[in-house]
Amino acid sequence: MQAPATALDDMAHTAGALIERLRARSPRVHCITNNVAQNFTANVLLAAGAVPSMTLSPDEVAAFAAGAQALMVNLGTFDAERSAAAEIAIAVAREHKVPWVLDPVFIDRSPQRAAFARHLMTLAPAAVRLNGAEFAALAGSAPETAAAWARDNKTVVALSGETDLVAGGGRLARIANGHALMARVTAMGCAASALVAACLAVEPDALRAAAAALLIIDIAGEVAAETAQGPGSFAAAILDALYRLDAAALAARAKVT
Amino acid sequence: MQAPATALDDMAHTAGALIERLRARSPRVHCITNNVAQNFTANVLLAAGAVPSMTLSPDEVAAFAAGAQALMVNLGTFDAERSAAAEIAIAVAREHKVPWVLDPVFIDRSPQRAAFARHLMTLAPAAVRLNGAEFAALAGSAPETAAAWARDNKTVVALSGETDLVAGGGRLARIANGHALMARVTAMGCAASALVAACLAVEPDALRAAAAALLIIDIAGEVAAETAQGPGSFAAAILDALYRLDAAALAARAKVT
Amino acid sequence: MQAPATALDDMAHTAGALIERLRARSPRVHCITNNVAQNFTANVLLAAGAVPSMTLSPDEVAAFAAGAQALMVNLGTFDAERSAAAEIAIAVAREHKVPWVLDPVFIDRSPQRAAFARHLMTLAPAAVRLNGAEFAALAGSAPETAAAWARDNKTVVALSGETDLVAGGGRLARIANGHALMARVTAMGCAASALVAACLAVEPDALRAAAAALLIIDIAGEVAAETAQGPGSFAAAILDALYRLDAAALAARAKVT
Repeated sequence: MQAPATALDDMAHTAGALIERLRARSPRVHCITNNVAQNFTANVLLAAGAVPSMTLSPDEVAAFAAGAQALMVNLGTFDAERSAAAEIAIAVAREHKVPWVLDPVFIDRSPQRAAFARHLMTLAPAAVRLNGAEFAALAGSAPETAAAWARDNKTVVALSGETDLVAGGGRLARIANGHALMARVTAMGCAASALVAACLAVEPDALRAAAAALLIIDIAGEVAAETAQGPGSFAAAILDALYRLDAAALAARAKVT
Repeated sequence: MQAPATALDDMAHTAGALIERLRARSPRVHCITNNVAQNFTANVLLAAGAVPSMTLSPDEVAAFAAGAQALMVNLGTFDAERSAAAEIAIAVAREHKVPWVLDPVFIDRSPQRAAFARHLMTLAPAAVRLNGAEFAALAGSAPETAAAWARDNKTVVALSGETDLVAGGGRLARIANGHALMARVTAMGCAASALVAACLAVEPDALRAAAAALLIIDIAGEVAAETAQGPGSFAAAILDALYRLDAAALAARAKVT
Repeated sequence: MQAPATALDDMAHTAGALIERLRARSPRVHCITNNVAQNFTANVLLAAGAVPSMTLSPDEVAAFAAGAQALMVNLGTFDAERSAAAEIAIAVAREHKVPWVLDPVFIDRSPQRAAFARHLMTLAPAAVRLNGAEFAALAGSAPETAAAWARDNKTVVALSGETDLVAGGGRLARIANGHALMARVTAMGCAASALVAACLAVEPDALRAAAAALLIIDIAGEVAAETAQGPGSFAAAILDALYRLDAAALAARAKVT
């Protein structure tokens, strides 16, 4: 029988340290992501201090992935070009010890994507960021089983929801931050996955990196909501908040158990 | 001889009811649209209460269209992938009684697109949203003939211009709302077409749905222009205005004859 | 031995005249550009008074380029479709005397792109806009050699950096305007290249056109930074500033030597 998962402590402090590291080191995060999300994802990474690259070309993607500090693979546009690019980039990332993150967008609506996502799971992602329906399609079990599934699959699961759940290696964090307007801006989840990759670029403990990334974007969302008039101004304000976020705001707002 | 078109009454009331229905039902609108417009279109749908999906993959698009509540096909990026996706999605939509909208972008500049748009017209779109130059290329006649052409083609024409004209089935609405800054933000027309599709998802009378959609986005544009400093803040503010729009604002501002 | 480059005078005045011409003439600028940059580039052109078009289709791109007032080719998404579109569009542009601009994005990270960029240099771009690393990859020499390289290659080099350098035909301008937030918004350089093309559409002196374009976007960035809270509000504010920019603001802020 497995022991119950242990909670993570000091996550606000960890998140504050990681955002400082992002700004100091400017890691490059290579993203294979969908058409809709590319621009906002790039701007989220830039606002947080990282540098995006997004090429998909089969001639180039290996070199871009090999030199990156992290890789994010998002299945939101599921075409032959991106599937091939994902295979190449992940192989190179593994060879060069570049951590990579899987975001299996909408696999609950497409058996083909779900099958591809299950194949990618055999290639050892450091973390998988997804929502409850996507988790169910990937794991074949309810979101409540995420901690056990993460342990069994030797990865970190970052499950977005009203309360985010981040689990892996017998540890668990629940993050009760965020704001409802985050669901009214397209690509917010895709951008969160890219931020998980950025944090993995500067923090070897994948569980703390993933939890910090979700905490950072959730708290940026709360800050943004204080001045936003709706989803349009919110999308701009969350970039501003990411750019300005500091340890004090993280400590004051974090609701992690 | 055909009778003159009858005016639509109570459009502000209809628009108010439809925006409530969008928020209550969150219909999914599948969009086959151009690269430039994808992000803004998704954000317009989310701000109005609908849910966007945008896959183009030949393996997936049938399932996405079959389960959607409306379909929008925009020809702004005219490539083999999107043409094939449009054919598949429209066939499935017709089979599942999912209403679909055509937006024949720039067919006045491309004979190939115009020919494809004329082919798509044989597949019974519930509505066609376009500008005057595009109408002329599609119909081979001046915008003044839109009401007759809509009747002859058993569709609804939603013709954007300084005054929008929405016509079909012997009825006609002229909408004198909107703001000049709408022409200074890319993809505004494409997003309007997606909103027409969203309204068709919650209103079976295609003429009222199309007229309500244009009235909603035009009035959101007027509200946005009151605080915008230029096209950048306007693009955010129109999303905010869509998100906050209520029956009172629609009633106070609507100029429909 | 070559004579030293001469400085450009009255650049604030030239920039003010060009922005007036853009608003009066609304030239169409055809852009073959990357996925990430398409939306923001279109909005920058619209804010400045120009009209964007972005089709890549091999059946259509010749007609779009032939009828445009300028062409911009950006290598940020380097795929077969865009490479083919670039070849077609550039050939047609040269035939119709449409000036064209090259933006060789990330050629310092990809030998394939660098080779393609060197090939495109044989097709007589009116201007090349790039950063220091990209210049070094293209020219095989340090940015300090830009003036000589531009002269030798019978083009204009617009080199973005903390101080921008614009050189060609034995003349040289250094622009010390701009703001650090410009590097925190994706596609800012790509959009600057499109603005260079727009200015070429209304000004036959390529050196003055390129210098004016960089001066315009740099000063719009300074104006935007005065109210922005971070990169999200900055991206909107720079569009607003472009839309509102006038000769007085240009004259008051220009730092050109």
